[in-house]
Amino acid sequence: MKRYDVSTHAHQELVDVTDRVRRAVQESGVSEGICVVFVPHTTAGVTINENADPDVGRDLLTALERAVPWKGDYRHGEGNSAAHVRASLVGSSCHVIVSGGDLELGTWQGIYFAEFDGPRRRQLWVQVLERAS
Amino acid sequence: MKRYDVSTHAHQELVDVTDRVRRAVQESGVSEGICVVFVPHTTAGVTINENADPDVGRDLLTALERAVPWKGDYRHGEGNSAAHVRASLVGSSCHVIVSGGDLELGTWQGIYFAEFDGPRRRQLWVQVLERAS
Amino acid sequence: MKRYDVSTHAHQELVDVTDRVRRAVQESGVSEGICVVFVPHTTAGVTINENADPDVGRDLLTALERAVPWKGDYRHGEGNSAAHVRASLVGSSCHVIVSGGDLELGTWQGIYFAEFDGPRRRQLWVQVLERAS
Repeated sequence: MKRYDVSTHAHQELVDVTDRVRRAVQESGVSEGICVVFVPHTTAGVTINENADPDVGRDLLTALERAVPWKGDYRHGEGNSAAHVRASLVGSSCHVIVSGGDLELGTWQGIYFAEFDGPRRRQLWVQVLERAS
Repeated sequence: MKRYDVSTHAHQELVDVTDRVRRAVQESGVSEGICVVFVPHTTAGVTINENADPDVGRDLLTALERAVPWKGDYRHGEGNSAAHVRASLVGSSCHVIVSGGDLELGTWQGIYFAEFDGPRRRQLWVQVLERAS
Repeated sequence: MKRYDVSTHAHQELVDVTDRVRRAVQESGVSEGICVVFVPHTTAGVTINENADPDVGRDLLTALERAVPWKGDYRHGEGNSAAHVRASLVGSSCHVIVSGGDLELGTWQGIYFAEFDGPRRRQLWVQVLERAS
């Protein structure tokens, strides 16, 4: 597995990590298989969404604030329960198919580290598995 | 990996793709492992839910419209931000365990392509990995 | 694959299954790879979140009740549509990277069986895959 540092710079932010994940796949030497991207935090996640218009990411964060407001009937003492909930909704991992030695993403897809309680220094872990032939 | 065409016929729709995924597993010859189902789009996803009563799928779409309304404080110019958000919530991929050469699903589980901005011609990608023994 | 019984004791509940999954990984003998955790039900799921303060789990369930209320414009005859929707949002599976023969989780992460329509006797399935070297 590979470990990467990700620095976030806002309270909520989507950081494009597609290039880092692609490099991990290329360096692994795996031709056919899958790539698992894992976030070892409980107030951040990872999601795949549009890579063209940054407003899509902004709208995702806005919609999450509406569906899971920052202030609410929460008990967790740190006051960041909404970040924990959003992490569970978006998910702490994703996987992408590897084929021909590269990530197989749709034309408009990018992989995003989703920060829900930043800014912080975070990590992103990547594991690449080969399909036995 | 295998690529399948999926045609959707409504603006929002759950299309049962369980049989297609099962066929991909059987054709792969993999006996023990996992199967990864991936949707290469940013306004559609894939989810596992009840295969018996179609009202469950209808209720899922209704609940998503309530949690993430189509009209809202969005900036993305194409006007389909809610579809992007729903795709990130449901997820663009899922995986199912393969055992005895077949998909291991619960009795009531089916795999559904989740269209959030159709009708469109879509794709579904499937990768099957063997557990090294 | 390994199958485990999980008994839930409330209508909604997060059950910590980290130890069971860790044991499955250790018994598999896999050193480098991934571990897939799958819930074969449509009104329960699995999620990774904070393992320290139980209020985080309680807040997750509260936030889901707010975002996807138990009573709503549902048609499914069994009256538990919200449980189905929450299962699709949280997801019926997760995966964790395996390295050095053990689960690679963040310091504060635990794996939780998420019951949305209990109490019931449930199952949890685990498959461990080795990275071909």
